[in-house]
Amino acid sequence: MDADLKASMCKESDNSLGERSLELHESAGGVIGISGKVPLNNIEDLSLAYTPGVAEPCKKIAANMDDVYRYTMKKNSVAVITDGSAVLGLGNIGAYAALPVMEGKALIFKELAGIDAFPVCLDTTDTEEIIRTVKHIAPAFGGINLEDISAPRCFEIEERLRKELPIPVFHDDQHGTAVVAIAGLINALKIVGKQMDNISVVISGAGAAGKAIALKLMYAGVSAERLIVCDSRGTIYKERKEGMNPEKEEIANLTNKQNMTGTLADALVGADVFIGVSAPGIVSSEMVSFMAHDAILFAMANPIPEIMPNIAKNAGARVVATGRSDCPNQINNCLGFPGIFRGALDTRASDITLEMEMAAVFALAGIVTDDELNENYIIPGPLDKRVVEAVASAVAEAAVRSGVAKINLR
Amino acid sequence: MDADLKASMCKESDNSLGERSLELHESAGGVIGISGKVPLNNIEDLSLAYTPGVAEPCKKIAANMDDVYRYTMKKNSVAVITDGSAVLGLGNIGAYAALPVMEGKALIFKELAGIDAFPVCLDTTDTEEIIRTVKHIAPAFGGINLEDISAPRCFEIEERLRKELPIPVFHDDQHGTAVVAIAGLINALKIVGKQMDNISVVISGAGAAGKAIALKLMYAGVSAERLIVCDSRGTIYKERKEGMNPEKEEIANLTNKQNMTGTLADALVGADVFIGVSAPGIVSSEMVSFMAHDAILFAMANPIPEIMPNIAKNAGARVVATGRSDCPNQINNCLGFPGIFRGALDTRASDITLEMEMAAVFALAGIVTDDELNENYIIPGPLDKRVVEAVASAVAEAAVRSGVAKINLR
Repeated sequence: MDADLKASMCKESDNSLGERSLELHESAGGVIGISGKVPLNNIEDLSLAYTPGVAEPCKKIAANMDDVYRYTMKKNSVAVITDGSAVLGLGNIGAYAALPVMEGKALIFKELAGIDAFPVCLDTTDTEEIIRTVKHIAPAFGGINLEDISAPRCFEIEERLRKELPIPVFHDDQHGTAVVAIAGLINALKIVGKQMDNISVVISGAGAAGKAIALKLMYAGVSAERLIVCDSRGTIYKERKEGMNPEKEEIANLTNKQNMTGTLADALVGADVFIGVSAPGIVSSEMVSFMAHDAILFAMANPIPEIMPNIAKNAGARVVATGRSDCPNQINNCLGFPGIFRGALDTRASDITLEMEMAAVFALAGIVTDDELNENYIIPGPLDKRVVEAVASAVAEAAVRSGVAKINLR
Repeated sequence: MDADLKASMCKESDNSLGERSLELHESAGGVIGISGKVPLNNIEDLSLAYTPGVAEPCKKIAANMDDVYRYTMKKNSVAVITDGSAVLGLGNIGAYAALPVMEGKALIFKELAGIDAFPVCLDTTDTEEIIRTVKHIAPAFGGINLEDISAPRCFEIEERLRKELPIPVFHDDQHGTAVVAIAGLINALKIVGKQMDNISVVISGAGAAGKAIALKLMYAGVSAERLIVCDSRGTIYKERKEGMNPEKEEIANLTNKQNMTGTLADALVGADVFIGVSAPGIVSSEMVSFMAHDAILFAMANPIPEIMPNIAKNAGARVVATGRSDCPNQINNCLGFPGIFRGALDTRASDITLEMEMAAVFALAGIVTDDELNENYIIPGPLDKRVVEAVASAVAEAAVRSGVAKINLR
């Protein structure tokens, strides 16, 4: 086994991880809590933080609603909102069972970006009810992170909330995943010496992440002629009848301009890049062997990838990334959302635009220096301290360029 | 001026308080934030608090919903919910302007009782929308504190949510205020040597607090013959036609059994106790002079009482309490809700029953020792360290007696 292949192997999987996670969550009583930011040691403190002094900030905000950003937590707070319908690889486990994931996400928001995020687990999966509820609770929040809401409802929920709320709304499973994956792809392409406008890409998965990745890849330069999205029935193309929905119709109209039909295996023949946001083990080594030379595979199904890195490498792949923390090249959303929201909150952006997302992509890709870049290091580790500041700053500048920023940090 | 009267005077009001409160809220960026309860220093930490380890608590909860209390923040979290319709003495200032008050309340929850409370400011005042929204967001919370919602909507909202949610729902403006006021009254009666079942009481204010105080006073022993509730039109009695609503009809049916008509001044003639939760300055010294000997006045209108303590004392009152932090005998809700929720959360009570509230009343009154008790010290200060533990423990025991506790701490 050559050294490169050895480096690409994943570590032993840790069977005790689940047990230790249970223990951690139980002993800590969840992973986040509330903390006071001002003292409450005496009556004077109480009179300032609460009545009667608190009437003063209330009156200011009542007179000028914009002052809510001046005197309250709103400017730094994000709601992490789920209906528990598409949690990790576990599916529709409901609002209660989703809470540990939302708490974990809030922990990451705080520790990586200093953002005060709070879990909102919704006991409804009705699209209109979700939209209405989020709008009702929005006043205390500076931003909305939608999380683990199943497709296709997630598309309408995000679209409507972006339109109807004055604060940024971001569905991380779509756009966060796409931002990080495309940043990784930019660096992987450097290694193989191919260009974004010259590659053929096959995406497996037409849910939230798959659609977002496809759209942003085209924005990044991939040709609609050479971009194919597959679902479990094979390629998505115009005039396909079975298993379609409005989002897949949109995909059919925007991608696969050659109207290629067939299976995922058919689509992969000669492809430069595979991006999987679908199901475990659906890519075989034979399928990899039919891809173009120096193939790139992002096998991001969680927790078990579409193909394990060592198998893909043995079959001839040059760069492999997964969603796993125990393999090289982890495409982890932690690299995206903390800095994206930091940049949006700091500029009081009213929206997170495609331009801001693409700024995050390039900032994230740019963190890996030429010296660092190699087949097993195309993207920073999820806790790399350089990431949030670089992403936030690029996003803040793009917010100004997009015309959605209230504050220009320059 | 005698020494006793001098002691009952309020301090100079502090004109700079509002300015300093603004400064505090602005410099701190609100008064609460989120804090992590577990480390996030390396990939191992991330794998335990978030993916892939977090899948394990999720699966446990999906299999047994009760485990949400074992592995998440729910067991210690409370939503502080308002629609901004009746904030302090400021009225209907809306969800945004109410946020500083809700943050302050969350700060008190944390600092006094270790409870993780989060502000939920609702951008709707529609009763059904509020009920639906609160039910939708309930999964992450162990309890619901309703706050500053105007009457009569607050009654239906609380009643419906108590019925329809499996977690305790508590409207602090009603029950918290009543708990603290009645605790103070128990001690005030010791000073004047009168008995609960032998006094005549006039309540001014038929909103949220007034109704709750009336009902709990009867539970504490005050006779329905000698309990009169007044609103701005005078006494509330059966067959009164003007300015009635369903809650006032209920008050008319339960109190004032002698069907006394007339003004607040008429009702106060010969009364032992006045309890005001109404409007500034509506009680004159002349009205006090017509009350019974050793009159007790709780003038709790905020920030300006129904009558200032020195005026009431000069007119012959023996014990005077207000809601002000700069006067003796502050009837402050901080003495109630932290311990009440602590006791309810610790026992995983499904409801906060009248029995639990009355247990809080007697526990709170009992904290003031015979040595401490005097006309200017009938109730502990709002930050008295003894309070939360005593109240929580009494409430926890009463939860078990009421049959609503899941956990018996004994």
